[in-house]
Amino acid sequence: MLKSLFNPVGVAVIGASGKELHIGNRVIKNLLDFGYTGNIYPINPKADEIRGIKAYKSILDVPGRVDVAHMVIPAKFVPMAVEDCGKKGVKHIIINSGGFSETGPEGAEIEKAFLEKARQYGIRIFGPNCQGIINTDPAVKAYCNFTFTFPEPGHISIVALSGGVAEVIHQGFSAMDVGTRIYASNGNACDISIPEIIRYLADDDGTRVIVTYVEGLKDPLGFLEAAREATSKKPVLAMKAGRTMEGAKAAASHTGGLAKEDLATDLIFKKAGILNFRDEGHLIHAAVAFGSQPVPGGNRVGIITNTGGPAVIATDILVDAGLTLPPLSEKTKNLLTEKLYPEASVSNPVDVLATGTAQHYLACLEAMMADDSFDCVLVNFVTPFFVDTESIAMAIAQINQKQIKPMVCNLMTDRRQWAETEAILKAGGVPCFALPSDAARALGALVRYRRMLDRDPGRLRAFGDIDADGARAILDGAGEGSMLAADRVYELLEAYGIDVPDWRMADDAAGAVAAADEIGYPVVVKADAAAVVHKSDMGGVAINLADSAAVKKAVAAMEKQIDAADLRFFVQQYVPGGREVILGAKSEPGVGHLIMFGLGGIFVEVLKDVVFSLTPVSDTEAREMIDGIRGSALIEGVRGEKPVDKTALADLIQRLSRLVTDFPQIKELDLNPIMAFEKGAVAVDARIAL
Amino acid sequence: MLKSLFNPVGVAVIGASGKELHIGNRVIKNLLDFGYTGNIYPINPKADEIRGIKAYKSILDVPGRVDVAHMVIPAKFVPMAVEDCGKKGVKHIIINSGGFSETGPEGAEIEKAFLEKARQYGIRIFGPNCQGIINTDPAVKAYCNFTFTFPEPGHISIVALSGGVAEVIHQGFSAMDVGTRIYASNGNACDISIPEIIRYLADDDGTRVIVTYVEGLKDPLGFLEAAREATSKKPVLAMKAGRTMEGAKAAASHTGGLAKEDLATDLIFKKAGILNFRDEGHLIHAAVAFGSQPVPGGNRVGIITNTGGPAVIATDILVDAGLTLPPLSEKTKNLLTEKLYPEASVSNPVDVLATGTAQHYLACLEAMMADDSFDCVLVNFVTPFFVDTESIAMAIAQINQKQIKPMVCNLMTDRRQWAETEAILKAGGVPCFALPSDAARALGALVRYRRMLDRDPGRLRAFGDIDADGARAILDGAGEGSMLAADRVYELLEAYGIDVPDWRMADDAAGAVAAADEIGYPVVVKADAAAVVHKSDMGGVAINLADSAAVKKAVAAMEKQIDAADLRFFVQQYVPGGREVILGAKSEPGVGHLIMFGLGGIFVEVLKDVVFSLTPVSDTEAREMIDGIRGSALIEGVRGEKPVDKTALADLIQRLSRLVTDFPQIKELDLNPIMAFEKGAVAVDARIAL
Repeated sequence: MLKSLFNPVGVAVIGASGKELHIGNRVIKNLLDFGYTGNIYPINPKADEIRGIKAYKSILDVPGRVDVAHMVIPAKFVPMAVEDCGKKGVKHIIINSGGFSETGPEGAEIEKAFLEKARQYGIRIFGPNCQGIINTDPAVKAYCNFTFTFPEPGHISIVALSGGVAEVIHQGFSAMDVGTRIYASNGNACDISIPEIIRYLADDDGTRVIVTYVEGLKDPLGFLEAAREATSKKPVLAMKAGRTMEGAKAAASHTGGLAKEDLATDLIFKKAGILNFRDEGHLIHAAVAFGSQPVPGGNRVGIITNTGGPAVIATDILVDAGLTLPPLSEKTKNLLTEKLYPEASVSNPVDVLATGTAQHYLACLEAMMADDSFDCVLVNFVTPFFVDTESIAMAIAQINQKQIKPMVCNLMTDRRQWAETEAILKAGGVPCFALPSDAARALGALVRYRRMLDRDPGRLRAFGDIDADGARAILDGAGEGSMLAADRVYELLEAYGIDVPDWRMADDAAGAVAAADEIGYPVVVKADAAAVVHKSDMGGVAINLADSAAVKKAVAAMEKQIDAADLRFFVQQYVPGGREVILGAKSEPGVGHLIMFGLGGIFVEVLKDVVFSLTPVSDTEAREMIDGIRGSALIEGVRGEKPVDKTALADLIQRLSRLVTDFPQIKELDLNPIMAFEKGAVAVDARIAL
Repeated sequence: MLKSLFNPVGVAVIGASGKELHIGNRVIKNLLDFGYTGNIYPINPKADEIRGIKAYKSILDVPGRVDVAHMVIPAKFVPMAVEDCGKKGVKHIIINSGGFSETGPEGAEIEKAFLEKARQYGIRIFGPNCQGIINTDPAVKAYCNFTFTFPEPGHISIVALSGGVAEVIHQGFSAMDVGTRIYASNGNACDISIPEIIRYLADDDGTRVIVTYVEGLKDPLGFLEAAREATSKKPVLAMKAGRTMEGAKAAASHTGGLAKEDLATDLIFKKAGILNFRDEGHLIHAAVAFGSQPVPGGNRVGIITNTGGPAVIATDILVDAGLTLPPLSEKTKNLLTEKLYPEASVSNPVDVLATGTAQHYLACLEAMMADDSFDCVLVNFVTPFFVDTESIAMAIAQINQKQIKPMVCNLMTDRRQWAETEAILKAGGVPCFALPSDAARALGALVRYRRMLDRDPGRLRAFGDIDADGARAILDGAGEGSMLAADRVYELLEAYGIDVPDWRMADDAAGAVAAADEIGYPVVVKADAAAVVHKSDMGGVAINLADSAAVKKAVAAMEKQIDAADLRFFVQQYVPGGREVILGAKSEPGVGHLIMFGLGGIFVEVLKDVVFSLTPVSDTEAREMIDGIRGSALIEGVRGEKPVDKTALADLIQRLSRLVTDFPQIKELDLNPIMAFEKGAVAVDARIAL
């Protein structure tokens, strides 16, 4: 669908201008300077030619095929221009101009108006309020964009709403002399969406890695679906900004969106198999490695250096990233002992010394590529004036081109003096980083991706024992915005196979005693009334009641304490002991629900030791949640305590996920606490808000 | 002392060579190319001239004064050459050559030999196995170094043992077109030490900020003392690599040191007021900001941008670093509403839009500099082709030169196309960073430094009630490597005013009962014998014994369980309740002791929620330790619990610090647990290893 957007045979620039500083001039200049292989049609009612190219008064006058109309005209003229494009048979319109939904309701009206026209004619809109696209494919060389980064052909594609950040990332590659493939920054994205572009790039053979930046997701599930498809084909690297409340506010002010704290985007990245970054520099560096390197088979790295300290720095960062530095195999050790200087350090890192030659680097590289102890290689390479650095660069490039195992190079030099050495490495496709930490982190990202590939995303359990109809009947009777009554809550949990202690509802003390007699002592009595939200704060909970007298006394106290016409009493088997855990679900509009898991009490209140996942939660995800809290050892059992039943907890998490997925009207659901035992886990208190 | 090392009037190159690829040639070339203002004396027995400069057969033939002899001769010749230098009256020798202590005992012997000679003649040695020095002072321009980074004069000085990393850092500044002041990389540092150089730089008026890199400290206390002096004069920024065990191993292999995990260096940095970095890129960026900017008065930042996304990224990072983004004052808001485009976003960040002009930037900058709401300013500046970016750069530079409040600039551009714009900013002393995160983090480092300046390091409490003589008598009686007997342990604690429960030592059941009768029930009985290290694992602890029968029974059980000739019974008042905390001290050779504080039980065992400090612990540090654990809210009291006595805990920490400082022979001391109450804190179990 987007093929002719990124590979246009003809581009018309509507609003083409003779003025140097006008975007309608620059886009034509960029197309020319970049070497666009198709036809350029400047559209300007008053000019005969622009930059030496014949101009047309109207798009309708253009003789040839126009795949892309690039508009740089004031917002109010756009709807009419779109109509003209429709008549001409234009397939895609890139709308550079701003003044649409990002400015308020008036602009949104215009956006709606031109979009209607576009739909009438089957035109797809890119933007508005956007930069545009670049395609470096030598057969195309399209630069429908007013920016100034002129990339060489490469394998990294960039897609983002934000032109500012997409351009910064693009500049980052350019500063490292790394080419790109496709660049797409679509601003308001009123029609062609980020997910759609991601799908296109996933199928684009020239794209080896997709890089994206978001400040929030317009269509989270659409994004998730597209990204999941894409990550099954190639790596997708992403950064989300506006992580902090202040950042979210800043994002809202320039996108016209709403400022809100956003946990969901990170979870969507995770679910989609996207490699997540919190620093655009790290993202850029990782993309450079992905753009030229195979994915490592594992996490074992060999380091070759000709200077000590930088290898130490790299080692720290690699270890932080979960890599290991195994020793050299005996064979490699013997080989290198023979081939390197006697003073060289033949361990991992191998230090060939500053005087180390191309032969030394080659021997190390060949040995490590052949040595099964290593999955990938990091090269520290400083360029002393007294060695033939160009030969070393050739040795590194030569090994890299075999693409046996991924390799990154920390090239420490002066780019002005060692330009040729650097050029040899880059021409050989070696990802070069000036700083050891950056090289190490880029390699770490490759290994992180390997872990992601190796991770089984898990399955959604079917749960044949669920009574969805029963649950629906319960929820249909409850109004939006209400808290579900206690009996309804526990019925609902039971319908979804969630273990709860035996319970009865009672209207008064006599009923409560009768209920307790049936359940068996000791019991818990809880006050239940629409107005009672925080039961325990209001004296509405009495635990460990050993006999009928205690039940009577508790009910009497509650009746005295709580003034509510609908007051009833929830009587429940008392289930002491066990490890307290909590589980919660919170509706996240447009996404589903966030599921939270943690240990109860101080662990959540003081230590905030909780993890989140997004519905629907797979079996793998449920287990990862349980293992993901800092205090997970408490679940495993410490200080002689028995472990708790992780299978039951994972089951509970998945049942809860299924419940809120089946019933999106559940706004909040808290199981707090759940008592987890060596065998089984029981939700002893629960509340549900609709 | 080091003045003539860094400002030599004459430099002799011993081992000067006519061969291009010889270091003895390169150093002369570097001195010449860099524009060294003093005299160069090549020393070579066979050459008449080198690079057009008259050469001498021996240093003794040199007619003029030689402040620095730069040696590039094989190790074995060095002692003799040092002797010649002594006869000549040379003040400093930079020994480039390797082959000394870093290679093993043989090399260490040579190092010892030349050092003896040097001391005879009062010569100071820089190195060996080192790069050398650079001084960019236009009056000096010394480049006694074989590296290739030719810095402009600047205000950042670099000092490190590791030549590789010092050079990487230097390259980092150079790549950003940021000048440096003094560069010193002294390899084995057998004589002139890092602390000594730090002291020199602290007093060097041309140095605004000192940057150092370490892999461990040769003389931790010497470093601490020098750094503390330096930080009272100017910022010191440092990075320690070899943080991980694998990194420490890599460091040991290239320095010939021992691999060990090192907690102390970070704590020394903290105690010295050094700004600590874990990433050399962050260190470089921060130094660039410190090199040209004043220290902010506080943590409130104003952002000016002409593109949305990068300001969002910067905001996230700034907030992470503890900065706040206050709203614009009414005055600023009104002013900017008037002066900027109507579509501009007049909040914080201020978005002047891509079309924003120099006047707009100037208005924002002036307003923020005048607005008391802000302590510092971050400028995002992308260079669209359609605005006069040079004027904008001039506006930013102009405001920066007033040095009212610190400012960093995230300049997003193509350095090839916007060279002049960049040059204007740099000439104006504006720290420019290509990535928004990097700019934000550099500003964050300035604010971190402000917090450090504002922090009261605290005082060491005098403790008039300490019985040091009594403690000495106890410890003098105990042999090295031994565990102190229980009665000695508690006597020692009491001598240092540490509260312990009432206790008695008993030899048998009858004695234990008598002791318990005196103390009053309930009591605890603990088995004490040299071989019993883990009492509770061996059934050697019985708590909450309510009467003499229980005491007898407990003693009988222990006598049966534990087969030790020296078995005795430690009887102690039972002190239940309270919040369990733990406190430990561990000897760190060459440094003092590491003091550890944490909550007891699972908090230390599972959550590893502990903090460390270095002796001697000040009152501020003791308080910071208590507040520094993740679970500190538990100390404050949560869920209706009473807070515990922080004053008593801080007192306890400081008494413990004093005890181990007074008696360095204490290898390990554990108070585990201490029972902390609303009033007071009591050490209920303790062990001391010598």
